[in-house]
Amino acid sequence: MAVGEQERLARVTLNRLAEPGDLRMTRLVADLGAIVVRDHLLAERGLSTLHDDVAARLDTIDPARELEAADKVGIRFVVPGDEEWPSGLDALSEAGTVNDRGGVPIGLWVRGPLRLPDHREAVAVVGARTATTYGARVAADLGADLAASGRAVVSGAALGIDQSAHRGALAVEGRTVAVLACGVDRVYPAANRSLLEYVREVGAVVSEAPLGGAPMRIRFLSRNRLIAALAGGTVVVEAALRSGALSSAAWAERLGRVVMGVPGPVTSAQSQGVHERLRTGGAHLVTCAEDVVELLAEAGEDLLDDRREAVTERDRLTLRQRQVLDAVGVSTARRADRIAAVAGVGLREVQSALGTLEAKGWVRQDGDAWVLGRTTVP
Amino acid sequence: MAVGEQERLARVTLNRLAEPGDLRMTRLVADLGAIVVRDHLLAERGLSTLHDDVAARLDTIDPARELEAADKVGIRFVVPGDEEWPSGLDALSEAGTVNDRGGVPIGLWVRGPLRLPDHREAVAVVGARTATTYGARVAADLGADLAASGRAVVSGAALGIDQSAHRGALAVEGRTVAVLACGVDRVYPAANRSLLEYVREVGAVVSEAPLGGAPMRIRFLSRNRLIAALAGGTVVVEAALRSGALSSAAWAERLGRVVMGVPGPVTSAQSQGVHERLRTGGAHLVTCAEDVVELLAEAGEDLLDDRREAVTERDRLTLRQRQVLDAVGVSTARRADRIAAVAGVGLREVQSALGTLEAKGWVRQDGDAWVLGRTTVP
Repeated sequence: MAVGEQERLARVTLNRLAEPGDLRMTRLVADLGAIVVRDHLLAERGLSTLHDDVAARLDTIDPARELEAADKVGIRFVVPGDEEWPSGLDALSEAGTVNDRGGVPIGLWVRGPLRLPDHREAVAVVGARTATTYGARVAADLGADLAASGRAVVSGAALGIDQSAHRGALAVEGRTVAVLACGVDRVYPAANRSLLEYVREVGAVVSEAPLGGAPMRIRFLSRNRLIAALAGGTVVVEAALRSGALSSAAWAERLGRVVMGVPGPVTSAQSQGVHERLRTGGAHLVTCAEDVVELLAEAGEDLLDDRREAVTERDRLTLRQRQVLDAVGVSTARRADRIAAVAGVGLREVQSALGTLEAKGWVRQDGDAWVLGRTTVP
Repeated sequence: MAVGEQERLARVTLNRLAEPGDLRMTRLVADLGAIVVRDHLLAERGLSTLHDDVAARLDTIDPARELEAADKVGIRFVVPGDEEWPSGLDALSEAGTVNDRGGVPIGLWVRGPLRLPDHREAVAVVGARTATTYGARVAADLGADLAASGRAVVSGAALGIDQSAHRGALAVEGRTVAVLACGVDRVYPAANRSLLEYVREVGAVVSEAPLGGAPMRIRFLSRNRLIAALAGGTVVVEAALRSGALSSAAWAERLGRVVMGVPGPVTSAQSQGVHERLRTGGAHLVTCAEDVVELLAEAGEDLLDDRREAVTERDRLTLRQRQVLDAVGVSTARRADRIAAVAGVGLREVQSALGTLEAKGWVRQDGDAWVLGRTTVP
């Protein structure tokens, strides 16, 4: 196990202590490591009057029990060093801050069978809550076409554009990741209950907020940086001027990822924010999934450079093997035909890839289905 | 008179001999001058078997009678050297060719009281004949707002976007120029008869085609280069992929003018050509007249450089005086209040400017109205 138990427990503790994306915390952890920070806070809890509140909360946190309870309901806590940790998040350490939010998350609570995708295989599709029927249709088409092309669709599970993007991906049995501002055991917005329940069944629901955490305003800002960091590019489908939906795009820009916008009628207020970004050169105009894929491919040389710098064991797999591996459930066993559908790969190729992956210890059989053989690599 | 009578007559003759934008002719005239080319053709008409057709036609052309007949119905022939000649057309000599079309026109037939605007004060608004209601609305708004801001709106008097752009300008009593592919004494398309009649009453109808000339396909291609050359920038409102409406934009690009496009729904085929241009960086995205004016202002420094190179007597007038001068009818007398409305300038300023312009010989009084004192400068 690459990540020690103490490290993971320390991160669970710190995750509960600090607000998602709290810059002091993410920086301290980046500089000193999670265990040192946790131990320092524990040692000081009787001393510092500044940390009265922290001290009181430290006493009530039982990270081991928290992990156990989470595991029972199919929730895992993914931290840096885990094989599933999306390397795209690490770029957040250099991506600046907004309102004292920023940095690499301490950890991510994840619910659902989907392995968190590599950002180079993921596209964020975001936009206005008060979408028009036009915007909703475009978001659904984009979600479906991107997922059908093998990309994972990342969004925020909000009403409007987010909802449509997830649904598009789900409609073609593609990969989708819902990044929440509240705990992954909560449902927000309530109107999206059935959507969220379906994503957690077949995709991944992700949050930096501790379990039970409420969807507070500040958490949406921190959440938006995760949406941008989890994807190679961010597409804004509809956004009014100064819409919150633009903040994911701003984060994508800070991260050096591809920023894209879908135009709409100039008479529509819901397209004004997008047009403003397109007009001032802050985004590329895209009209369909093909345009998105083309732009990401153009940016691909840079992305490949990143990849060369940090070759993981996973990177040594073929593209086909990685696609199949990504479609194998983390916690839920899946039959080969289902894996083939999710990966968008033929059944025979899937069976061949599964054989190789099994021999290397990446997957194992469970009856007539398959699950991951390990979620972390040495 | 800056332009000699022989020069003008020679150009009338050549205009009738050659197709609009015929590259051999425009180049010959640029290199040798109109009189030399005309005389050369006259001298050779008995000799060259190649020019049998030309020779036959040369015999039938009576340029003086043609000018006289045109003048009787309020049509003038504007040639390089005339004060009214738009200097923006001269850039066509360096702007390349398409299908053996190109070059500076031999002359322009003009009908209507509006003095041809300086291209730095004109914007072309063009687009699909089969416009959507959305496109038609946007074109009308653009036409109206650009005209209200003092710009002349140049378009092709076609159905759809062109028609709406002209109507928008006319609705605010602004300046508009309709550039035809047929003779200015003809009406095409027939459905736009009342529009064309109104433009010739209050604006300017322009064509490179000789009087009576039919709207042939090849003439639309030549016509599109004039639309682009007569304006500081060209806005495409709606255009399908490979639409003819994009050819004005392509000419604008060749001329180094500002190329702009109005986005629309990505689900609309009529916006695909515009999106393609916006996507590939061949055009600036604009959503309203303000965006257009801003882009033209940004390009203004270059335009001012052009201006510095060729200071004409007109350039020595103040901006206000030029605005008023442009609003004085070439052939129809206009009262000061009407001039004020057309120029978008207050009545007192108009009266003051008219006084100065009269003293300098630019305008003269005709009863209680004003007409141009001279249409050419020494």
